[in-house]
Amino acid sequence: MATMKALVYAATGKPTLEDRPKPTILKPTDAIVKMIKTTICGTDLHIFKGDVATCDTGRIIGHEGVAVVEQVGDKVSHFKPGDKVIVSCITSCTNCTNCRTGMPSHCTDGGWTLGNTIDGTQAEYTRVPHADGSLHRVAKSASDDAQLMLSDIVPAGYECGVLQGKVKLGSTVAIVGSGPVGLSALITSQLFSPLQVIMIDLNENRLSTARSLGATHTVVSGPNAVEQVMELTAGRGVDTVIEAVGIPATFELCQKLVAVGGTIANLGVHGAKVDLHMEKLWDRNITITTRLVSTTSTSMLIKLVESGKIQPEKVLTHNFAFGDIEKAYSIFGAAESHNCLKVVINI
Amino acid sequence: MATMKALVYAATGKPTLEDRPKPTILKPTDAIVKMIKTTICGTDLHIFKGDVATCDTGRIIGHEGVAVVEQVGDKVSHFKPGDKVIVSCITSCTNCTNCRTGMPSHCTDGGWTLGNTIDGTQAEYTRVPHADGSLHRVAKSASDDAQLMLSDIVPAGYECGVLQGKVKLGSTVAIVGSGPVGLSALITSQLFSPLQVIMIDLNENRLSTARSLGATHTVVSGPNAVEQVMELTAGRGVDTVIEAVGIPATFELCQKLVAVGGTIANLGVHGAKVDLHMEKLWDRNITITTRLVSTTSTSMLIKLVESGKIQPEKVLTHNFAFGDIEKAYSIFGAAESHNCLKVVINI
Repeated sequence: MATMKALVYAATGKPTLEDRPKPTILKPTDAIVKMIKTTICGTDLHIFKGDVATCDTGRIIGHEGVAVVEQVGDKVSHFKPGDKVIVSCITSCTNCTNCRTGMPSHCTDGGWTLGNTIDGTQAEYTRVPHADGSLHRVAKSASDDAQLMLSDIVPAGYECGVLQGKVKLGSTVAIVGSGPVGLSALITSQLFSPLQVIMIDLNENRLSTARSLGATHTVVSGPNAVEQVMELTAGRGVDTVIEAVGIPATFELCQKLVAVGGTIANLGVHGAKVDLHMEKLWDRNITITTRLVSTTSTSMLIKLVESGKIQPEKVLTHNFAFGDIEKAYSIFGAAESHNCLKVVINI
Repeated sequence: MATMKALVYAATGKPTLEDRPKPTILKPTDAIVKMIKTTICGTDLHIFKGDVATCDTGRIIGHEGVAVVEQVGDKVSHFKPGDKVIVSCITSCTNCTNCRTGMPSHCTDGGWTLGNTIDGTQAEYTRVPHADGSLHRVAKSASDDAQLMLSDIVPAGYECGVLQGKVKLGSTVAIVGSGPVGLSALITSQLFSPLQVIMIDLNENRLSTARSLGATHTVVSGPNAVEQVMELTAGRGVDTVIEAVGIPATFELCQKLVAVGGTIANLGVHGAKVDLHMEKLWDRNITITTRLVSTTSTSMLIKLVESGKIQPEKVLTHNFAFGDIEKAYSIFGAAESHNCLKVVINI
């Protein structure tokens, strides 16, 4: 049996590089892809904390990557061996009611499966189910690094943060959390020409990156953060608050920042319940949204990258060889002390 | 000084009928109206529980009513003495940014003022600020009782429940709370032809009324309520959940009933924070909305009443003379044991 290297959620609870059998076609709608680049997501860290109940130990982790198609099943129509592709974090049958109503994230035979309920992309090879609905051909003129960002976090920032948050011309936006997905929301927010995009984080280095990527204001999270945002918005608060952390304290902050009539769009992966202050918000015309990225925007985002309108590769800070992926995990897991945002794993 | 009878939030914390000076024009945009009918709102009960921090003792309560204009200030253009009107629960200057962007509930010189920050409609006479933006001429061919329902609860059920909840053709709806505002949401939901409207309440009499008003299914709130709704919806949950109670337990129930991609539209007045289960909902594509009624739908709703398309007077169960308003409070305050929904106070 042919084997390969893969990063596994080991029984020890640690990310561990192991030898695994090379995947094979199991269904005629599958493709086997040879990974070129992958990356680590904050959600992967949640798996190793035990926050993701659907992911068992023994699983190959990873739901992002740029790859080359090696083999396709008989019913794959749109891809052939040799095609260079983005592997979407969402696999989509394209046929169930959820897929057909624009919500492939909740595909009844897919959704977030890779590196969760089936083996993922932090491996030399990956089996991608429903390849026709789950792969995107890369733009040849754009870099692999930029397109690696389109598997998950740029569509996530855009769909779950910017679109759900109704960022629009002349509006005010605060993004709580200046990590990779918060920065993706920052990058794509600006395409709608809001008046202000205020980035909030504990870490001054991340805020410095945010300023370089177009934030109009940055605020260090702390006891005066609400006061500072109120000063910036003439006491109104902001029209859109994007929650890009996923803990009760940041969700609490969002509730203090949102203007009457505004929206809190959640991007963070939460492991615990939060307090919702309905005693203060019941009459404030607030909308709160949650969403798992659909990746229905990916093909459009590829064109934006190709045209140079967005440069998501600016969020990439570190490169690792695949053999060093355990080290990459340890650096990404303590990202702030390494000035680390998103990492590239070259396979 | 001319005096009148008025129902006051007394220093004792009790609803008390007192003699008060008859109101006079204070600003040229005011009208003085002579009340014909008023009613008691669940929100008034919250005031007497001390839940509404903006409302001081000494205040004349009430934000609903049908009346006749007695006097208008120099700058009132659209109403004249003798006009029969609905007094909106929202007073609107029509000129501030919130008013001009369709959110008069948050008018910077109005909003929910009557019976809250200024004296209200449970009185023989009421001063209505910004009369041009705060009164609606009644439809002569429709009953006063039906139109009394258009001051607050029918627009509230429609705007905050049905519209915010995105009730639509073929969708599934659950309304938690079969009191007056929940029933208003039931009545107006049906105009969008949803497939199912499931009413949930602890009280069988209220559910019986809900069935007579068009509920497709009723569920007695209790340990099996979630299971019953899941059976009715093939395990999906409902597209729209309307929260028409306002306590942590009912908000919790809503989170268990909502389908992936669905909306929880809050109608209830909350006096305490609630748990929001972001650890379960972060990836479920859920929207939660809060809203204070704008009453921007009132003029349209008057036409619906006039045409017979809705009959909100069916939610009225009790009539009282104004001299008996304290008794009306005691019956409305223990509504379920009196099979009481909405009461008419004839002034």
